[in-house]
Order: sequence, then C-alpha cells, then structure tokens
Amino acid sequence: MTATGNILALTGGVGGAKLCFGLAQAIPDPRLKIVVNTADDFVHLGLPISPDIDTLLYTLSGRSNESQGWGRADESWQALAVLEELGAETWFQLGDKDIATHLWRRQALAEGLDLSTLTGKLAGKWGVTAEILPMSNDPVSTVVETVLGPMPFQHYFVKHRCEPPVSGFAFTGIEAARPNPRLLELLDSAPPAAIVICPSNPFVSVDPILSIPGLWQRLRDCAAPVLAVSPIVAGMAIKGPTAKMMSELRMPVTAHAVAAHYQQRYPGLLDYFILDDSDATLVDDIDKLGIHSAVTGTVMTTMADKRRLADTLLELIA
Amino acid sequence: MTATGNILALTGGVGGAKLCFGLAQAIPDPRLKIVVNTADDFVHLGLPISPDIDTLLYTLSGRSNESQGWGRADESWQALAVLEELGAETWFQLGDKDIATHLWRRQALAEGLDLSTLTGKLAGKWGVTAEILPMSNDPVSTVVETVLGPMPFQHYFVKHRCEPPVSGFAFTGIEAARPNPRLLELLDSAPPAAIVICPSNPFVSVDPILSIPGLWQRLRDCAAPVLAVSPIVAGMAIKGPTAKMMSELRMPVTAHAVAAHYQQRYPGLLDYFILDDSDATLVDDIDKLGIHSAVTGTVMTTMADKRRLADTLLELIA
Repeated sequence: MTATGNILALTGGVGGAKLCFGLAQAIPDPRLKIVVNTADDFVHLGLPISPDIDTLLYTLSGRSNESQGWGRADESWQALAVLEELGAETWFQLGDKDIATHLWRRQALAEGLDLSTLTGKLAGKWGVTAEILPMSNDPVSTVVETVLGPMPFQHYFVKHRCEPPVSGFAFTGIEAARPNPRLLELLDSAPPAAIVICPSNPFVSVDPILSIPGLWQRLRDCAAPVLAVSPIVAGMAIKGPTAKMMSELRMPVTAHAVAAHYQQRYPGLLDYFILDDSDATLVDDIDKLGIHSAVTGTVMTTMADKRRLADTLLELIA
Repeated sequence: MTATGNILALTGGVGGAKLCFGLAQAIPDPRLKIVVNTADDFVHLGLPISPDIDTLLYTLSGRSNESQGWGRADESWQALAVLEELGAETWFQLGDKDIATHLWRRQALAEGLDLSTLTGKLAGKWGVTAEILPMSNDPVSTVVETVLGPMPFQHYFVKHRCEPPVSGFAFTGIEAARPNPRLLELLDSAPPAAIVICPSNPFVSVDPILSIPGLWQRLRDCAAPVLAVSPIVAGMAIKGPTAKMMSELRMPVTAHAVAAHYQQRYPGLLDYFILDDSDATLVDDIDKLGIHSAVTGTVMTTMADKRRLADTLLELIA
C-alpha cells in the first residue's frame, strides 16, 4: 500500500499532529496529505493565527516544543512581556518566533495568497514534505456554547482554560465555506489509498472539517477506506478537553460514543474505528454501529509510539 | 523661566532625542512638549512603525540602546531570524521588544485611537512625563529623490544606507496634513516660553514638521522666541546623513548654511541659532541673516553633555 496512493489524514492540532508525525516518518514523501482544521483560526493583535496549521508545521519540521505540547522549541517571550507591560491582551501566548510566522502569514495574505498556497510555502521553506492542506480557504470560526454564553474557540480554550461547561458548538461561516480546492483536485485525480481521521477532538477539530458542505459525503463516496482513531482511551482523553466535553454533553465518555457520534453525523463514512488495547471489549459495540474495528496501542508518548501506530494503520490499509 | 511656560521642542529621531533627553532632565514635568516628525513613519510587514516617536519614547523612558543609537536596550532578534529564514524582507531591523510596540500601536489604531492619543498612552505607560506630540495625526511620507529615483525614506535610510546621492525631498500628503490638534490647543491656550528646534536633520526631520500648512507661520507669529540648535558642527554632522545630503545638494557643509536654509524656507521664524564653540567664527555671518546667535558646546556625547546643553538653552531663554 505504501508504494502507491495518497494517505489523506484529517486532523486538528496537538493530538492529531502526533499521528501525523508518525505517518510522515512512515511516508517520507508528498503522498501524505494532511487536511487541517482551520476553525480555531483567529486574528489576535492584528496577527492571523492558524493554531492547528502551525502545530502541524512546527511538529513535522522538528520545530515544536514537545514537552510544552504547543508552540515552538527554543521560544522566547520578549514581545509578550512588553505587551503585558503595555496592558495588551496577553492570554494568548505569542512567542517571539511564533510571531514571525504570523507576521509572514499576514504579509502573504496581504499579497493576495490564499491560506492553502501560503501554508504550502511555509511547509516548503521548513522542509515539510507532507502536503498540509487547510480544510478551506474560507473563514470558519468555532463558537463554543457554554454556561457563560457563546464564546470564540480560543477564548474558551486558552483564556478560559476549557473551564466553562459546554452545551454545543457552532461553526460560523461553515455554510459558505468551500473545501480547499487542492483537496478537491486530489480527490478528483485519484481516490486516496485511505482516509485517516486522527485522534483529534471530534467536536472542535474533526467536526468542523467534516461540516464543510458536501465534504463528508465526498469522502464517504470515494473508493478509499475511512479509518478513525479514537481520541478516547479507557474513558479518558489523552490530551485536551474531549472527555470533559463529552461528559458535559451528557455522552458516555467512551471510544464507542465517539464512533457513535461520527456514525450519527456522518452515516456510512467510517469503515474502521481504531480502538486502544484497553478498549478491546468495545469491539462488539462498534460492530453494532456497522463499523469495523481494529485494536492496537493508540497512546503516543514517544516518537516510537507515533511511528508504531502509523505503521499499524498502514498495514491495516494495505 | 523654568518656573512657568511650556518649552516646545521640534525634533526628529536620534540627534534631537539627545537634546530632548537633556531637556527632560532639566524640566522633569509635563511642561516639556515635544513635537515629533512622523514623515518617516511607514508600515512594514503590516506593522505601523513610527521610528522617531519610538526613539523619543525609548530614550525618555530609559529603554533605548544608547550604544547602538536606535532601538531598545536588551533587545533580542528571534522573530527577525525566523522572518529571514522565511525569506521576508529583513532590511528593517525589528527587534522582539520593538515588535510589541508596533503590535500595540496597530491594535490601538484598529480601536480607533489617533496617533497622538495612542502615543500619549504609550508615554504614560512608560513613565514619560514630557508630552510627546506627533506632528500630525494625518499620514505624511518623506520621499527622497535620489540618483536611483525617488524612494520612501526608510528605503533610502535603512535599505540603501543613505548611499544614493540625493537631489531633493518631497513630503507626500503634506498638503492635507493638519497639525496635531493638541499642539494647536497648546498654542491657543498660551504662548510657550520658547520653541526649540533640535539638532535634527533639517531636510528630513525638521522640514516635514515645518511644512505642515500654516504651522511655521503660527510658530513665528506666537510670542515665543524660536531657537534652533545647529546639527552641523565644524562642517560635520554629529549623526546621520545631514552633511552628506548638504554636500549632494551643493550646499556648503556649514552651520551657517543650515541657518540660511531655515531663513530662506521660513523667513523670520528663527530668533536664535545655537552654534558649537568650534563654529564661533560664524557668528557674524549668522547675524547677517538677521538671526541672533549663541555659542556653546553642542556636541552631546555623555548624559552630562545633554543636560548641560539643555541648561544653557534654558538660561538663554530665561
């Protein structure tokens, strides 16, 4: 399988980026196509910030801060300290190197480049061979409905540290958003060997991508098998607020509930659901949803873990 | 004199900022009003940069890099290194701390503050007691006419390191520019005790200020004496391209030629021209222009030099 055909990965930021890192090690050439959530994108202090795209770029180019889980390695915070002194909003941590990415992006947008093209240029400059595809060039913004009222995603995620209980999500602009034309071009030219939904947050990372009008049906109807890796392992989220959100949404906090969520919203999309070894007992229940399952170690702590999961997926696809 | 009345200083960046620093030591209260050239202002990578205002703010708040002559002390260059890696234009040296100033300014402008108001806020946050008045809230841009064609000031000054011989200057937008309303308000409420033209570049720092329609006549007609400190000492500019420009404009490179330039453009404006001790022989020639002169040490190398010149001027005014 790895000899021919593209692997299309759908991902949000940190959790999904780990698997993408593993896939990029296993497929060290442009056949890895990564469709990235852009509904977390926002403008802060005039800077156009694409958190998930940047996490992918930093991770795949070896520039990410592994221990911190976000941002760049060897980052400094001189600008932020001055902004704090000036009373600017500093809840979103902008590192000095990270600011340069946003300034560059701002300039590229001002010169008329679309997000997809400029992201390709960034990837090229940083030696990323996988193709990083923003889900859309059109603006989409996640709004989190919380007990404090609706708030933009970054306010919920960073400013309020995911604390306010959530009751739902809306994706402003989604009706008018078109899939990244490059993605459509890829799907038109040949079906990918497989589509992998990374273990990202279903509600705020994967759902925005699959909510672009017509996109999930397009992915369902192409010949490629669709595999989703569970972001929930033994009733816990490896990273981020997925489990907390499920609980607040009154869903069982299980991998099965994630599969059911996908099956309900996108009937017939998923062919395989990948469970962690610790969730092997859920296989029958996943079966009952009409989805095949596979069981393997899905927790990615080390580089080797990421590569191993990627290799397992590629074997399964083959 | 120092007991009552405002001192109005007209200045560009580095050279004039030295005298303003001395004046701010001598008048440590808001009676020092500093009118700053904004015709060097430009937008770079989307950041609104006001080089002369920032030099004043950094200098008067003790944040400037004294040895470098521009920018902030304890500056770092992480963002610039990334911008370079990404192939962005890096001829204008943006330090990490300096970027924060521009991001803050950008945000303030986006919130509807004018340049004068936001500059006052920056000064307040950084403990600058002198009032820093951008010459205008309206955009004015110096264009330098050179053998390579006309170019924006920062391209001439930084990108081309003042190398192309110049033949003249234009101030785009000057016809529509109104003086800073706060400056007019100050002039309306009471004449200042004196107006000091700092030893800044006559052509690209002082002329833009005095070219705002009606402003120089207004300053001439108010009761305050107008003193100009020569930026040329013994045929050399202390800092920057003043002497080189004079030579290329086929002017004698002398303090007298600077006084003559001011007298020709702004007849009757100057009451006193302050010469360095080394130029004492020029007193008679300055007299012939119809301008009084005073001779003192005008070279400001140390903090004490700046204070001494400020004190001398204040005695003269008194």
